[in-house]
Amino acid sequence: MKILVTNDDGIDSPGIHALVHALRTIGHVTVVAPDRQQSAVGHALTVSSPLRAIPFHRDGEMFGYAINGTPADCVKLGISSLLTAKPDLVVSGINHGANTSINILYSGTVSAATEAMMMGIPAIAVSLTSFSYDADMSGAADYATRIAQQMTSYNLPKGTLLNVNVPAIPAGLLKGMRFTQLSKSMWEDKYEKRYDPMEREYYWIRGTYHTIEADGNTDDGAVAEGYVSVTPIHYQLTDIHTLQSLRAL
Amino acid sequence: MKILVTNDDGIDSPGIHALVHALRTIGHVTVVAPDRQQSAVGHALTVSSPLRAIPFHRDGEMFGYAINGTPADCVKLGISSLLTAKPDLVVSGINHGANTSINILYSGTVSAATEAMMMGIPAIAVSLTSFSYDADMSGAADYATRIAQQMTSYNLPKGTLLNVNVPAIPAGLLKGMRFTQLSKSMWEDKYEKRYDPMEREYYWIRGTYHTIEADGNTDDGAVAEGYVSVTPIHYQLTDIHTLQSLRAL
Repeated sequence: MKILVTNDDGIDSPGIHALVHALRTIGHVTVVAPDRQQSAVGHALTVSSPLRAIPFHRDGEMFGYAINGTPADCVKLGISSLLTAKPDLVVSGINHGANTSINILYSGTVSAATEAMMMGIPAIAVSLTSFSYDADMSGAADYATRIAQQMTSYNLPKGTLLNVNVPAIPAGLLKGMRFTQLSKSMWEDKYEKRYDPMEREYYWIRGTYHTIEADGNTDDGAVAEGYVSVTPIHYQLTDIHTLQSLRAL
Repeated sequence: MKILVTNDDGIDSPGIHALVHALRTIGHVTVVAPDRQQSAVGHALTVSSPLRAIPFHRDGEMFGYAINGTPADCVKLGISSLLTAKPDLVVSGINHGANTSINILYSGTVSAATEAMMMGIPAIAVSLTSFSYDADMSGAADYATRIAQQMTSYNLPKGTLLNVNVPAIPAGLLKGMRFTQLSKSMWEDKYEKRYDPMEREYYWIRGTYHTIEADGNTDDGAVAEGYVSVTPIHYQLTDIHTLQSLRAL
């Protein structure tokens, strides 16, 4: 199995290291990842400036290509130009921080998987619900590997990817996997108004996450109960029901 | 009617100027827009650096706030911090270039409307199918105004926004409005490999847009036939059908 791995925390993050280490046990892994942190970039693409692919070494060997772009750039550039063959699977992560509910719209991790899915390649996004640099990635890496192995048995439609969220608890305490839907959770935004050393005002976002309709059948709920949440995601964005009402006006 | 206007081409673009000029005939308009071109930023948010809101003047009067951020930032910061009251409507555009089909995932214009919709505010994204700086924006501005006026009569659900695409033809030749669904059109990506003056290689994206399943009921098809396309968009991203299959495994 040929696997392309990317992320949005940057090619030197612990999450992608753990993921690559685990996936190498089941396939041939190529890494194409951003050269720096790209959180909250959403589905941004680099169109107005050139991209570079710089070999990145880790532990004395070639680890992958570092790209001065977004996660979606990495998938597009990797598959169209850097890889010698189309991958069988794209895995994005392991993200430091949950990508549940509405967060997938802002998530570079999920956007990389979306980009792969749009190219007709099975795709998985994997996130751990912890922002700690030292978080234990082993449980998330194990589950990502297991899901990658089982991918074909899921019979996913072409337009559907899997979004995986793993609770940040010791791997031994994970209760298993649960298929879920997105919760209706939302961010309440506040911007702190501050003053710089020149006395000019600036704003810095501080969001509060409110879990809404987040029972055990949802991603947020499953994770809270200690399960690895696996959500099938698609992008059928036309509101067909409303379209019918509008046409009848 | 209190209207917040933003865009992704930057606060000094002809598109937002035409839109604001037209919307001022039907309501009180406040502009909060990026201080520079932000195309293809998708739903990116600025979380790791401060935002500034700088008054921007045009024709000798205050036009709006210029923000060093993305369209989604403008909506969040505008509504939470800059506006004195919650707007009744958010209009994003007029974008220079179509935002049809899968392009809405990459579109800063649509993401601004999405952000408003997530805050419970009716939202419209407006795009003209021309990248020309000198394109005639009058037809698009007129239709945006008309749609804004009729917005309440559409009875849209809370989670649905309108994505409007206007053909780049003389306003008098527009055939009217048509409610549409997203087409299945796709980008085929190619990256040109080039060499800089130091002989180091770099890549630059060059996409080719393929219209697929783009009949007159779709956005791409309606625009091609000379109609203003209006697509109701929602973000119910869980693939419920596949979820049921997965749970039955």
